[in-house]
Amino acid sequence: MRAVDIIIKKRDKIELTREEIEFFVNGFTSGEVPDYQASSFAMAVVLNGMTPRESTDLTLAMAHSGQMLDLSDVVDLAVDKHSSGGVGDKTSLAVLPIVAACGLPVGKMSGRGLGFSGGTLDKLESIPGYRVDLTTEEFKKQLKEKGVVLAGQSLDLAPADGKLYALRDVTGTVPSIPLIASSIMCKKLAAGAQAIVLDVKTGLGAFMETLDDARVLADLMVDIGKLAGREVVALLSDMNQPLGEAVGNSLEVIEAIETLKGGGPEDFREHCLHVCAHLLVLGKLAKDLDSGRKMAEKAIGDESAFEKFRVLVQAQGGDVSYVDDTSKFPRAKFIEVVKAPRNGNISQVHARGVGEAAVTLGAGRAKKTDSIDHAVGILIHKKVGDQVKEGDPLFTIHANDKDKMTEAVSTVLSAHSFSDDHVMPLPLFYT
Amino acid sequence: MRAVDIIIKKRDKIELTREEIEFFVNGFTSGEVPDYQASSFAMAVVLNGMTPRESTDLTLAMAHSGQMLDLSDVVDLAVDKHSSGGVGDKTSLAVLPIVAACGLPVGKMSGRGLGFSGGTLDKLESIPGYRVDLTTEEFKKQLKEKGVVLAGQSLDLAPADGKLYALRDVTGTVPSIPLIASSIMCKKLAAGAQAIVLDVKTGLGAFMETLDDARVLADLMVDIGKLAGREVVALLSDMNQPLGEAVGNSLEVIEAIETLKGGGPEDFREHCLHVCAHLLVLGKLAKDLDSGRKMAEKAIGDESAFEKFRVLVQAQGGDVSYVDDTSKFPRAKFIEVVKAPRNGNISQVHARGVGEAAVTLGAGRAKKTDSIDHAVGILIHKKVGDQVKEGDPLFTIHANDKDKMTEAVSTVLSAHSFSDDHVMPLPLFYT
Repeated sequence: MRAVDIIIKKRDKIELTREEIEFFVNGFTSGEVPDYQASSFAMAVVLNGMTPRESTDLTLAMAHSGQMLDLSDVVDLAVDKHSSGGVGDKTSLAVLPIVAACGLPVGKMSGRGLGFSGGTLDKLESIPGYRVDLTTEEFKKQLKEKGVVLAGQSLDLAPADGKLYALRDVTGTVPSIPLIASSIMCKKLAAGAQAIVLDVKTGLGAFMETLDDARVLADLMVDIGKLAGREVVALLSDMNQPLGEAVGNSLEVIEAIETLKGGGPEDFREHCLHVCAHLLVLGKLAKDLDSGRKMAEKAIGDESAFEKFRVLVQAQGGDVSYVDDTSKFPRAKFIEVVKAPRNGNISQVHARGVGEAAVTLGAGRAKKTDSIDHAVGILIHKKVGDQVKEGDPLFTIHANDKDKMTEAVSTVLSAHSFSDDHVMPLPLFYT
Repeated sequence: MRAVDIIIKKRDKIELTREEIEFFVNGFTSGEVPDYQASSFAMAVVLNGMTPRESTDLTLAMAHSGQMLDLSDVVDLAVDKHSSGGVGDKTSLAVLPIVAACGLPVGKMSGRGLGFSGGTLDKLESIPGYRVDLTTEEFKKQLKEKGVVLAGQSLDLAPADGKLYALRDVTGTVPSIPLIASSIMCKKLAAGAQAIVLDVKTGLGAFMETLDDARVLADLMVDIGKLAGREVVALLSDMNQPLGEAVGNSLEVIEAIETLKGGGPEDFREHCLHVCAHLLVLGKLAKDLDSGRKMAEKAIGDESAFEKFRVLVQAQGGDVSYVDDTSKFPRAKFIEVVKAPRNGNISQVHARGVGEAAVTLGAGRAKKTDSIDHAVGILIHKKVGDQVKEGDPLFTIHANDKDKMTEAVSTVLSAHSFSDDHVMPLPLFYT
């Protein structure tokens, strides 16, 4: 078997066999298949696609390119969740403690943010001392003893995916639904997940801008999961406007804590309860979504979810006094409340615009090596469909630099659109 | 400007600007654009194509990636010819001396053979002492003084093309008409050609198997030439069966010499006269094809063409006694005449089959590093349309190894097909 013949088959739109895909992925992982063959292959996949069967074989081959985590000695059923990323998406911070408090142990390996999209690890690191780099042994021990883990991906999970992703980023081969789906799913499979809730975002601040694309991605990931013998549920959720109010690392942690204590923005709370309900059903603790949701509400109401978050932070070395008193989080030097410039109805809060403003402030990374300022960010006070009066607080910017403040105010302001007519609020989920 | 953005444009079927193409080619030549970006770009070109304008800009950028030969101090009008390659194609060996004898100076840089297709340099090296590695100074001096040169490409002509071709070979990105056209044309432009006759082969032993593909390639090369300000004529010639009788290095040199002396196979002689006529018209020595053809016939008839070949061989250090007495060429150890197994009409002599048999014998290379046996080869005695009787000599194999002889006999025999019905001869050229 030769790598070039596999590239030629894909170029000529001939379906690849499992053996061919395994040969290519294994060769790429070991370095026998050089980057220049992998990138030409990736471009052929971008332009000619892959069948669900090929995508599944690619996913499994990448999952098996490194260590496969086996959690069966730690939990009865390993559940996991994944969000395709967005602006203000601090869902994991709230959902994991809630379902863990309901009795469903859950350990998740998260990523860092890049571009307009934030990352769970960066948010968690707002809490002084919080360690994201657990060893596999630490991960399993904590999952068994505390029932909840939120850490980074250990180095040797699906190395083929990490290598391919870095290559795709510089060779124009990112936007391929089979490649995106297999990249997401291979990490979930390698991390030992048996049942997975996928939160596929769609809209102006999501990688999948159209609902159609998001649906194709969601369906393919469900297919891959099924073909790989896992239970997978995919939700389609809105990412036209930011989720919740807070965008920025410590601001989002504070919002997640408020939500765990029964407060927080309505849209974020609803989003979390829905994801929790699905996880509890998949985890066989709830018989249906209604009872799953009630369990989650109860865990918030009796503060067991908040207590679980304290346990999580403490277990991973974080200073829990910040959780107990969120006023301890460092505040940005400059805080400016920006008011509505006119009367009207909010017709758009462009999520990508807000996300890019957050990057400008230092809350995110334009490139991988950039450092993060955990204190800065944006609070969005009004959502699409809200009626505002001139002078109402529209958003608040937390900045550590006056020039960046000026730029962010202007960017976030222009992310807002107003209408004289009544505007329907955006749905949280699409069906 | 970033290479990845240029790849993305081509991936998304957006026409590239000249500046973008130059940036990419220059970066690739200097090594700033790595192989993995060039191969993903090449795959995008294979699958999405290029406009004639983009192809011309690519050709010019590759031509300018190294030294540009300027022959204006040596000849009034620099003419060149190019064949897209085939089996038994020794045209340059005869055509160059003929037109040079007619008073049209011509210096050509040729290549080596790879796979089933032979190369002019390998053929010339059958003549002991013949040097193909002339310096640019030697090339120009000989063109000025002798009016004829047949040598290899000096290292620094169009280095981007050499680098890209090597990459395309291992990344499944060879079969792209814009890439093939620009690869051919950039070398012609870099070699200083102002007027070019392109002999585009089509058929079972050509890279362009269908007439339609050959025509698209020919038209594109003519367009590129025009857009680059050169005069270009493209001929479409048959390569379903080998050209002439001889396939194999010294056997082909002998056939070319016989042709220069007025003998040689009819089809090869006709092919050469037609190419010569076009060159003489382009070179402004003949007013039309008819008078060009008559000039070429005269150069053969008065032996001035043969004399020019002697001059060429002598100028490049070859032992001219081999030209004067072709029985001096080393003969293969085993020579076997294979007879027609039945009565009938020849309906096919599969050129690629014959070419592959020649590689088996050692006349060609399966891979670049293989060495060549100049003595071995095949003589094809009957052509498509010929009537044969059982026992008539069908072909002759010259081999230096008994096992290879056996294999070649069987391969060449199965390259022949017979019909009970009358079969039309194949045309030499298509219009």
